[in-house]
Amino acid sequence: MYADVLIIGGGPSGIVTALTARKNYPDKKIVVLRKEDKVVIPCAIPYLSSSIESVSKNIISDEILTKNGIELLKGEAKSINRDEKYVETTVGRISYDKLVLATGATPQKIPIEGIELENVFFIKKEVPYLEKLFRTVREVQNIVVIGGGFVGVEFSTDAVKLKKKISIVELLPHVVQLNFDDEFCVQIEEKLKEMGINVYTNTRVEKIIGEKKVEKVLLSNGKELEADMVIVAVGLRPNVELARNAGINIGRCGIVVDDYGRTNDPDVFAVGDCVERRDFITGSCRSVMLASLACRDARVVGSNLFEMKRLRRIVGDYPIFSTIIGDTAFGCAGLTERQAKDMKIEVVSGEFLTVNRHPGCLPDAKQIKIKLLFDKKSHLLLGGQVSGDKAVAEITNLIGVALQAKFTCEDIYLMEVGTHPMLTSSPIVYPVIKAAEDALMKLSA
Amino acid sequence: MYADVLIIGGGPSGIVTALTARKNYPDKKIVVLRKEDKVVIPCAIPYLSSSIESVSKNIISDEILTKNGIELLKGEAKSINRDEKYVETTVGRISYDKLVLATGATPQKIPIEGIELENVFFIKKEVPYLEKLFRTVREVQNIVVIGGGFVGVEFSTDAVKLKKKISIVELLPHVVQLNFDDEFCVQIEEKLKEMGINVYTNTRVEKIIGEKKVEKVLLSNGKELEADMVIVAVGLRPNVELARNAGINIGRCGIVVDDYGRTNDPDVFAVGDCVERRDFITGSCRSVMLASLACRDARVVGSNLFEMKRLRRIVGDYPIFSTIIGDTAFGCAGLTERQAKDMKIEVVSGEFLTVNRHPGCLPDAKQIKIKLLFDKKSHLLLGGQVSGDKAVAEITNLIGVALQAKFTCEDIYLMEVGTHPMLTSSPIVYPVIKAAEDALMKLSA
Repeated sequence: MYADVLIIGGGPSGIVTALTARKNYPDKKIVVLRKEDKVVIPCAIPYLSSSIESVSKNIISDEILTKNGIELLKGEAKSINRDEKYVETTVGRISYDKLVLATGATPQKIPIEGIELENVFFIKKEVPYLEKLFRTVREVQNIVVIGGGFVGVEFSTDAVKLKKKISIVELLPHVVQLNFDDEFCVQIEEKLKEMGINVYTNTRVEKIIGEKKVEKVLLSNGKELEADMVIVAVGLRPNVELARNAGINIGRCGIVVDDYGRTNDPDVFAVGDCVERRDFITGSCRSVMLASLACRDARVVGSNLFEMKRLRRIVGDYPIFSTIIGDTAFGCAGLTERQAKDMKIEVVSGEFLTVNRHPGCLPDAKQIKIKLLFDKKSHLLLGGQVSGDKAVAEITNLIGVALQAKFTCEDIYLMEVGTHPMLTSSPIVYPVIKAAEDALMKLSA
Repeated sequence: MYADVLIIGGGPSGIVTALTARKNYPDKKIVVLRKEDKVVIPCAIPYLSSSIESVSKNIISDEILTKNGIELLKGEAKSINRDEKYVETTVGRISYDKLVLATGATPQKIPIEGIELENVFFIKKEVPYLEKLFRTVREVQNIVVIGGGFVGVEFSTDAVKLKKKISIVELLPHVVQLNFDDEFCVQIEEKLKEMGINVYTNTRVEKIIGEKKVEKVLLSNGKELEADMVIVAVGLRPNVELARNAGINIGRCGIVVDDYGRTNDPDVFAVGDCVERRDFITGSCRSVMLASLACRDARVVGSNLFEMKRLRRIVGDYPIFSTIIGDTAFGCAGLTERQAKDMKIEVVSGEFLTVNRHPGCLPDAKQIKIKLLFDKKSHLLLGGQVSGDKAVAEITNLIGVALQAKFTCEDIYLMEVGTHPMLTSSPIVYPVIKAAEDALMKLSA
């Protein structure tokens, strides 16, 4: 079999690469090879306990490919022959002109005694596995979640709605500490506790205890937690074996690509969670796994497969995250203060607290808290964190756009936004602008 | 009396000028002179029928000034002597070093027979007047609103909740036509009709009929509407008399100022609704009245009163509006297609329709419709319009930031955003990016 474009992997980055290539190169034969029978919406997996009632409601329809004239093959790639430009797969040999690796990432294993026990689960993107996982959630009572990153925290907020007893165990001083500064982490931990979730930070899981099934979890503080089920959510490692075996360069955090997704082989591209990210300030390598970032990669690669058709003015990878904990949404874009300090950047922060409606007596008014970070020398925006109502996700995206536009503190302070009593904060106290003002006063002091 | 900074006008632009000047020039004596006893939140006035129960809940507290060491004087300016740098007021002569005119705008009168009848109201920003207006709304049954701009439409959506019979009469082919293209105007008109509001477009009010009080309204189509009350909401004219009498240059749309709010007198500044706006594409004069824009002006002027302290990289005035009609929010930033065509710009539009959650089966999922406009030659973003859930206001602001950052269609297409199942559209179909893709395909065709 021959494909002008062969894409290995059927997740968001594979899908968007295929769709983008189809729009840009209408005459090319595009084939997506994937090992899963069905593809889940990855970011919604933590919500399969209660918000989304079944795994079957969380499927990306194959029609998105087939109705756009993209061929879908179900099978697994075994090896790549780059000299003769073909891939050996479980469904036969496929020759390619351009090859795109969208092989994703796999839950990280951790060396804990008892990890092989029954009812210990990882967050895998496989339908039958997830069906079993969430069937088990419904059957059990006590759930211990190892890892307080986004996935562990989000899973907990959804499962607790089924009146389960949930404990999150996090090694670091705070949950979601890689994405938020302390004041936001503390706010998230308070929300989790309000929801009835136990949070153990600065704590290691020493041992998972049980005969056949998990029964207890022993923590580093000596405490034993009752556990009918354990969810391991300690991060993902990029799937790079296929690429490595084919002599593609692999870095510390994934497949090495340039700003156009090209590997060291000009006919082999890589996109999504399997690639090494580049910090947007320094260009140094970094791990950021996000479906939205994967889709951005896919738009870049899908547009530029056969020629340099769409040049990028914005390069580097911007971490932009949002989530909701109980009734409060949280978002972060760019660097945290902790990360900036690790990078030896002298930062100035601007903070502000307000409400998202005006007047504040309106029935759905909710507090908004914001923090923006700027470089002390250049005044360049480095990052932002926000909490508040659901629109916080789009405020975070607005900060993300300002980051990508290389806005300074002055630019943000003197920029325009629209406001409306029923929809936003007052123009007098619009949070992004007031946080910039707070920082500007420190910068001028 | 002497003030280092004398600000005439106590609305949002006056307040923010004072607060900004206080932060930037802590040692200066700052005085705000205003004629109103209390100041209302202007944008929330249309919501005083039902969403906000009384005018007294819609007041900007004077504390915002006084607790920041700003002196508040209640009185009216009568004339300015620029040679000797003082203002004659109803509370005595005030000398100034820097004078800021934040005199706002006044509802436009229209030459209609019967406009002087009892129960014909304008949207004035005066507490006793508004108290009488909204007391009357509660007492009457049939209300005719002349003018289908934002204020007329918003007033109608709120008053109709009190089971009033409301009719909007608009001269143009569509309501809010100055801010949206036809497809969005039609959507808004449908929402209004769903809420039980009668909409007469392409229609002129010929005459307001009544003995002492208004009784009927005669339309240009010959129809007579029962009316116990008429609201005139046909726009505002800038208050420029004080400035004109002092020899300050006045343009077609207000007081003429440069990018730093300076008039032809280097010690006299003007901010807010009383100034003439400049189109962000051509720099030609234009009328845009928005509290958010007024606050932006005020940040610029308040920062730069005594020296050029904060230079602007972003100049020109960007119209950015949002509103909510029934259960659907609408936003617009920059030019509409109609305006672009009037300016003889050849535009390419990108459209997209999706939902704001993923998967779309989530209980609060709502349709999002978007349209972006780009210049055909440079691919520069010119404007955007969106409808959907309340977060649409912040998506509109995101488009506003992209406009101010001079993003092209390619920049938007290849930029990053964050997404979350419970908060945003899927990364595969994020509306701003998909609309850019739609336009890009037309641009490359």
